[in-house]
Amino acid sequence: MDLCDVFKTKKIGDKIELEGWIRNNRDQKEFGFIDFYDGTTFDTLQIVYTNELSNFDEVCHMLMGSAIKVVGTLVESNGKQEYELKPDKIELVGECLGDYPLQAKGRPTREFLREIAYLRPRTKTFQAVFKIRSLAAQAIHEYFQSHNYVYVHTPLITTTDCEGSDQMFKITTLDMANVPKDSDGNVDYSKDLFNKQTYITGSGQLHGEAFAMAFKKIYTFGPTFRTENSNTKTHANEFWMIEPEIAFCDLNGLMDIEEEMLKYVVKYVLDKAPTEIDFCDKFIQNGLKEKLEKLVNSNFVRITHKEAIDILLKANQKWEFTPNYDSDIAKEHEKYITEYYNAPVFITNWPKDIKAWYMKVNDDNKTCAAVDLEVPGAGELMGGSQREIDMDILMQRIKENNVDASVIDWYLNLRKFGGCYHSGFGMGFERLIIYLTGIENIRDVIPFPRTPGSCEY
Amino acid sequence: MDLCDVFKTKKIGDKIELEGWIRNNRDQKEFGFIDFYDGTTFDTLQIVYTNELSNFDEVCHMLMGSAIKVVGTLVESNGKQEYELKPDKIELVGECLGDYPLQAKGRPTREFLREIAYLRPRTKTFQAVFKIRSLAAQAIHEYFQSHNYVYVHTPLITTTDCEGSDQMFKITTLDMANVPKDSDGNVDYSKDLFNKQTYITGSGQLHGEAFAMAFKKIYTFGPTFRTENSNTKTHANEFWMIEPEIAFCDLNGLMDIEEEMLKYVVKYVLDKAPTEIDFCDKFIQNGLKEKLEKLVNSNFVRITHKEAIDILLKANQKWEFTPNYDSDIAKEHEKYITEYYNAPVFITNWPKDIKAWYMKVNDDNKTCAAVDLEVPGAGELMGGSQREIDMDILMQRIKENNVDASVIDWYLNLRKFGGCYHSGFGMGFERLIIYLTGIENIRDVIPFPRTPGSCEY
Repeated sequence: MDLCDVFKTKKIGDKIELEGWIRNNRDQKEFGFIDFYDGTTFDTLQIVYTNELSNFDEVCHMLMGSAIKVVGTLVESNGKQEYELKPDKIELVGECLGDYPLQAKGRPTREFLREIAYLRPRTKTFQAVFKIRSLAAQAIHEYFQSHNYVYVHTPLITTTDCEGSDQMFKITTLDMANVPKDSDGNVDYSKDLFNKQTYITGSGQLHGEAFAMAFKKIYTFGPTFRTENSNTKTHANEFWMIEPEIAFCDLNGLMDIEEEMLKYVVKYVLDKAPTEIDFCDKFIQNGLKEKLEKLVNSNFVRITHKEAIDILLKANQKWEFTPNYDSDIAKEHEKYITEYYNAPVFITNWPKDIKAWYMKVNDDNKTCAAVDLEVPGAGELMGGSQREIDMDILMQRIKENNVDASVIDWYLNLRKFGGCYHSGFGMGFERLIIYLTGIENIRDVIPFPRTPGSCEY
Repeated sequence: MDLCDVFKTKKIGDKIELEGWIRNNRDQKEFGFIDFYDGTTFDTLQIVYTNELSNFDEVCHMLMGSAIKVVGTLVESNGKQEYELKPDKIELVGECLGDYPLQAKGRPTREFLREIAYLRPRTKTFQAVFKIRSLAAQAIHEYFQSHNYVYVHTPLITTTDCEGSDQMFKITTLDMANVPKDSDGNVDYSKDLFNKQTYITGSGQLHGEAFAMAFKKIYTFGPTFRTENSNTKTHANEFWMIEPEIAFCDLNGLMDIEEEMLKYVVKYVLDKAPTEIDFCDKFIQNGLKEKLEKLVNSNFVRITHKEAIDILLKANQKWEFTPNYDSDIAKEHEKYITEYYNAPVFITNWPKDIKAWYMKVNDDNKTCAAVDLEVPGAGELMGGSQREIDMDILMQRIKENNVDASVIDWYLNLRKFGGCYHSGFGMGFERLIIYLTGIENIRDVIPFPRTPGSCEY
């Protein structure tokens, strides 16, 4: 039986059998306490054992981390919980040796725990983080599925990429120590498995657009890769992304969806993981719960990039980067804007020259129908746009951005064959988890993070 | 509004506005019929327009595949459906040019449609297949989430792999035309992004086991890669896999889970996609629906590998491959066994020498606690095992199988630190979709398939 089901369905007097692990074992002369958990719920069950147990001495010496099987009866507790377990039998299933890295006294640092990524999910912090990660993933699926979206598995191996191939990992079956070359000295990819140069993808958007032209509403949810050699708290080389794409949807419609989806996910996590959220609130980010509840009940603000720059320029503040109508906004600006409104803020109509080639150019020919969502305390959480469907403008933008049109001829054809106005956005899943848990470093929201110079486990 | 919501909530006399595409347009002198769809449901809505429309001539010439917006009233229909749409207005949103590859007369072959993978999701066959794929994915998530599993994103970039690295793609940021070498002439991976040789994974199992030792019940669901240079109907180089791992679970417990999960998924698809299943039954695999309903109501058989060989040897049948107690069973054997029982069959306790190193060796020291699920008409759908946790046996198996123990020291440590008996299985998601749709070729259940020599789009 799972411990979470015990808490849901069992009452005082019920006999139960459980298997799980010892979080803590304090023995006294004639009795002892085991904090028991099995990972199916954040809570532990207290086992109060006495020397009536035939193996009392053995139980007293069972170390933290050991796997045990326990049979007993739920009895009234004097502690915080409704009941505790009076065991008839405690059996060692798998011992935990004395050099267990988590047995050290005191609270281990997150830096230390990163070094033992295979054990850290057993700690309270990472039980909370990875449970919230799992629930948030489910919330995303439930939101989109219940709103008639089709989940599409866009390919990871690809010959092209909408963000440019300089950021992509090459993949190959060739012998790296002895790469075959053609007579011009170029790599002879005809000997590679796909007979051409291939990468692992940085975005499924282009393929997603093809499916939006068939199913109207689609989303992707899968791993994504960037080669960025950047060791910051917010960059990883492997991360998960959600990329919805919606036909017959303009920029305003897109913002409606982003807002509704985010509120749904946050509410879902608040509802399903109240104990985990309380823990994160207490030990990771004070005020987390209030922050999340506020988001659910707020109205997201919608302003243009120009209006944002107006506000920043009027601010009585010294900027490291001077706000500029033609430029991106810096982290300090994002922070100011969200604090100014004290709410999540959509910033729309960005200068086209700093945005991607596939975004719809506005009539002013200076801005494009792009939107970033800035969230208090987290910065940019989603980025999206209406897509360019005017073939002349699209070809012009492709040229300006040095995109190889020949490998995306199929994508361009989407405009010829019943193409319609459509929009989509991308949300980095780890950014969402950082927001939901209050954890600061992306390495602490990914089970086994991959960052430059670090590919352990 | 989505067409599926129209069908769910609207009645005769209701005024509606829809955007979508023309599946078919037959115009007569004074009126015409448009089969309208928007991809949110398999069904089409018939629009019956007359020359009362101000742009009647234009509408008559709107080609199949064009995107339109239509405003009108639901009226009684003489056709199969409850109602049809009497339009006040039909507006062209995006035209479909005359060289539209899907406009060709007759039913295009699946081989032809593979060549236009970006357009094929618009056809009835692929609307059914990819909707069923999306629903099956959701069913899997719902099954595991509602049974207290944690969804874990195991890493795709890895330095090791439980199935052996000879089947893995290398990934790199090095310049392939000019690979840096050390003084011994070996590739100098210290110059690569992770400072070592890395691959993209063929399984998340080992990492999944680490999380099962923290959360008891976990599952993965993500893309997986194999370099197999094999052009068959069942092989692709990129596919999705589900890998649950359960602590305190033996082989019998594992089979219970596999059976319950599969029935849940099949029932979910039957319930949520009855029209799509009917279509597949009629046009892809006759008897599909009956096959699926039968599975939901069947009891899966459980036999050992030895019992399976006994049956095969007693069979009055000429085998291409002679059944053998020490060997794997061939496709012809799988077929015979499932027909013999006329039900899904779990085959357990395989010769250890033909199975993976991490599978628990049985007391006979000849067989291991592995299980394959053979399904009528689909062959092997899942493969799993109880895992070896005896360190001496495990080290012996690692040695026999030439696995590099040094890169999986963390995995071996799981046995030292509260390790317990545990089991897990893998299910190829595409095999499931082949089973659910009756489609024969794996290339037709993946949005953009990757197979040797073929990485298009």
